[in-house]
Amino acid sequence: MNNRRHFLRNATLGIASAAAVPMITQAFAPSAAAADAVDLPLGFAGFSFLKFDLDKSIAMMKRLGVTNLSVKEFHLPLNSNQEAIDAVKKKLTDGGISMYTVGVVYMRSKEAVDQAFSYAQKCGVGMIVGVPNAELLSYTEQKVKETNIRIAIHNHGPEDKLYPSPKDIYDRIKDMDPRMGLCIDIGHTFRAGVLPEKAVVEYKDRLFDLHIKDVTAMQKDAKVIEIGRGAINFPAFVKALRKIKYSGICSIEYEKDMSDPLAGMAESVGYFRGILKSS
Amino acid sequence: MNNRRHFLRNATLGIASAAAVPMITQAFAPSAAAADAVDLPLGFAGFSFLKFDLDKSIAMMKRLGVTNLSVKEFHLPLNSNQEAIDAVKKKLTDGGISMYTVGVVYMRSKEAVDQAFSYAQKCGVGMIVGVPNAELLSYTEQKVKETNIRIAIHNHGPEDKLYPSPKDIYDRIKDMDPRMGLCIDIGHTFRAGVLPEKAVVEYKDRLFDLHIKDVTAMQKDAKVIEIGRGAINFPAFVKALRKIKYSGICSIEYEKDMSDPLAGMAESVGYFRGILKSS
Repeated sequence: MNNRRHFLRNATLGIASAAAVPMITQAFAPSAAAADAVDLPLGFAGFSFLKFDLDKSIAMMKRLGVTNLSVKEFHLPLNSNQEAIDAVKKKLTDGGISMYTVGVVYMRSKEAVDQAFSYAQKCGVGMIVGVPNAELLSYTEQKVKETNIRIAIHNHGPEDKLYPSPKDIYDRIKDMDPRMGLCIDIGHTFRAGVLPEKAVVEYKDRLFDLHIKDVTAMQKDAKVIEIGRGAINFPAFVKALRKIKYSGICSIEYEKDMSDPLAGMAESVGYFRGILKSS
Repeated sequence: MNNRRHFLRNATLGIASAAAVPMITQAFAPSAAAADAVDLPLGFAGFSFLKFDLDKSIAMMKRLGVTNLSVKEFHLPLNSNQEAIDAVKKKLTDGGISMYTVGVVYMRSKEAVDQAFSYAQKCGVGMIVGVPNAELLSYTEQKVKETNIRIAIHNHGPEDKLYPSPKDIYDRIKDMDPRMGLCIDIGHTFRAGVLPEKAVVEYKDRLFDLHIKDVTAMQKDAKVIEIGRGAINFPAFVKALRKIKYSGICSIEYEKDMSDPLAGMAESVGYFRGILKSS
């Protein structure tokens, strides 16, 4: 399952090392893409671009040098046919963006589970970030086995009755197929009173994806904020990711100033890269 | 001379600690302003805002949570009278911005030196970032003694015949009044083949200000780029600043995308804060 990931990484590195002069290669690591790819590559959770069409979203990601996108349904509806999906994939590829997963996809019925897996198959991704209802987990597991597509279940904080914190997911899936795992949203995790740097270690064997953000405090009604201005300990978080040799994407989900998010996204990307560089 | 600085810092910290609940204080350290103030406070070199009037520049700085500005003459002409200066100072203060210095001011005649010091006096700043011609250094020293205003001389890279690198300044002023010093521009320094992390240590006794940026390579024709995407080693640079207990402002001078710089400024500010947090 990791072959795809490794292929993608090597491909990206290949581009970088194809540059003729080592000095220039290092200098132009600004292809921040290449810089990110070495260790913990950055991405974006598609929800960050709620107010923007796909072209504008791609342009923003290019400006930030971030190349991995978890595609959200407002950019590519769940009921899209193969032709529509291929058109979006081409647009992404042409823009230098890799669709590394889809979601968050909510699954409240068997039909919704079927649709999600069929959608992921047509998209050619090896993972869905999703929220299947608890009573659908065993059916979801069947689909995972049938399709060999992993599912990364997403926690949504203290007000979420289903999966408030990573433990609520982990306890339900830990004895299921190992392709059932977590997308830990560190903001919602922190608001639920759990330290992200502990959660990623505790559930490392099932950690497939991350939604990275910062929040103002460890309390339910905390607000999202530019990464680095809030209360999450990012050096500790990054150290934990390295300790567990996290091999997924570090997707930022930026949910502040959603009509004018570029500056806050840029500050967040910059801060996270600074932490990656120094930690 | 440092009393003013310490007063400002304590004032900022005072605001932070006035918050009622410690948890909230920590959470809202995001008032990145307060967070920056503790150790190495951020600022902006006014030239970054070349294409923007003062109101827009203040709005951009507020969005980025950066409160210290080196005021450039296009925002406040060198021949301004006291009334015009006071109006700009009020606008800055109302916007939460501290005018911590002025410049870069070029001084190619005695009259220009006189004007610069008179301007700084009217502005109420204790330092000028400037470039006096070499033959005016001794006259500049007289003005420093007369006004007790420091001068931080700015290096401008390999194509600058006057002061290409920090050493070219230091060698000329090292035996002069200790209030004669340097504003090391780390991008120009790097392009001149000198490592910023070495320069700040070497000239620490005369290091008054910094223009912080990143460049694509250690070569004359390297381009400026978002901080973190270039070739400068920021963890090493920040470690050096801490080693020498640098007590000035870390002013970012952002010179890329000057008509649309906010995203690049934000990424740069974020990256530098990430390095400050982790290094």
